[in-house]
Amino acid sequence: VIVKIVLTYDGTGYAGWQRQRNGVSIQQLVEDALSAIEGEPTPVVGAGRTDAGVHALGQVASAELSGRRDTQTLERALNARLPEAVRVLQIQEAPPEFNARFAASSKTYRYRILVSPVADPFSARYAWLLHPPLDVLAMAEAAAMLEGRHDFAAFQSTGSTVRSSVRELSSVVVSEGPVGDPWTGVASAFPGRLVAVDVTGDGFLRHMVRAIAGTLVEVGVGRSTPDGVRVMMASRDRGRAGRTAPPHGLFLVRVDYKSE
Amino acid sequence: VIVKIVLTYDGTGYAGWQRQRNGVSIQQLVEDALSAIEGEPTPVVGAGRTDAGVHALGQVASAELSGRRDTQTLERALNARLPEAVRVLQIQEAPPEFNARFAASSKTYRYRILVSPVADPFSARYAWLLHPPLDVLAMAEAAAMLEGRHDFAAFQSTGSTVRSSVRELSSVVVSEGPVGDPWTGVASAFPGRLVAVDVTGDGFLRHMVRAIAGTLVEVGVGRSTPDGVRVMMASRDRGRAGRTAPPHGLFLVRVDYKSE
Repeated sequence: VIVKIVLTYDGTGYAGWQRQRNGVSIQQLVEDALSAIEGEPTPVVGAGRTDAGVHALGQVASAELSGRRDTQTLERALNARLPEAVRVLQIQEAPPEFNARFAASSKTYRYRILVSPVADPFSARYAWLLHPPLDVLAMAEAAAMLEGRHDFAAFQSTGSTVRSSVRELSSVVVSEGPVGDPWTGVASAFPGRLVAVDVTGDGFLRHMVRAIAGTLVEVGVGRSTPDGVRVMMASRDRGRAGRTAPPHGLFLVRVDYKSE
Repeated sequence: VIVKIVLTYDGTGYAGWQRQRNGVSIQQLVEDALSAIEGEPTPVVGAGRTDAGVHALGQVASAELSGRRDTQTLERALNARLPEAVRVLQIQEAPPEFNARFAASSKTYRYRILVSPVADPFSARYAWLLHPPLDVLAMAEAAAMLEGRHDFAAFQSTGSTVRSSVRELSSVVVSEGPVGDPWTGVASAFPGRLVAVDVTGDGFLRHMVRAIAGTLVEVGVGRSTPDGVRVMMASRDRGRAGRTAPPHGLFLVRVDYKSE
């Protein structure tokens, strides 16, 4: 049977989702834990290949098991073997043809920016720290231009060899809020503000969300304009986009499937 | 001149606020940084003596400098010398007689509890993980009984030798909310809920907030009742209160002063 596994992880210090020669990847951790429980090599396929240092609130993976399992027992067994930074949130039986990567109809990422004169110990590993000011209204205007079906060649990492760089983003939204108490918004003495870039799309090129975040920040600090972003996108030239934002501000928030 | 210093810190791995023989304390870090800048030993006094592993969003300290300083320059110099886990948020010149500890009129603490069948990698160091169910309404009812002027002897650590264990709590509130994306509340796949116990008072006995949180949790899991808490408080017997909640869920949120 095929199972769908929903995962969250703090990507700090890991080599990203995909198994590789150097460094410990999340995929490797999950495959090793699952293989040990199953008693045979059990590969898992992930919906989003998050880069080294990128976090996930709702990564989805699929795997084929040799037989039917009690999913709650399997969930507990996996969490008992995984490090604290990686947690299985849910396991469900999936249709026979389910593949977490190819069946995904859309993915949502959040890029978090802390705009503050001073760092926040509680978000140092979870947000890109920038000094004020940041023109969030101009960023939101530029973000709106990225919505829809476009050739995002200017936003992929150099050297990519995908067949097409056309993708459709259903939503690119920039929002701003207080930092306060992590998770619950109690007012604190902290002088910073949190800016979030939320991007939902049918597919993403390599480093695309981080290139979008870096480009929107160029607009926010006045080195580019919403019009400049439009021209840059039309150029399909990676050299014109903003620098790729650092990985520790990026979260894979959720993956959606048509059947749901 | 006397300065008032507002600080935030991630207490994970530190020996608490107060300087001591074993382990690195926050007070020691701040004193060492300030003394190096001033060129002479410069003690600092903290408003709340947070225990080992307890965090602060708004600790306040006072120090006497040999002369007038540009507070923004001093802020930057201190942050340059402190580890990332400790940040100075603000420095102001204070009245000549200001003492961060004795001038404080009230302090607010938040105790954070994650109620979830599975741990959250992003709050593992910042909340006490409990498995559901937790009766938050019963906890709130018991919390209300702690408000006002009472003898809190049952809530201090055994062996304490303070003169009086009478304290006044102006507010003890239990609230519950979604976990979602840390800091900004975006819905995620995470199945847990966050319960916060917010306590404001004119003074606190040793381990008092953690004993209150532990006692309210006893009510939440059905091992005690709001009435039982009333009886327990009247007994002044530490043996009757719930166990001291672990330090990593506790935050010193703010310190208030009459003059403000």
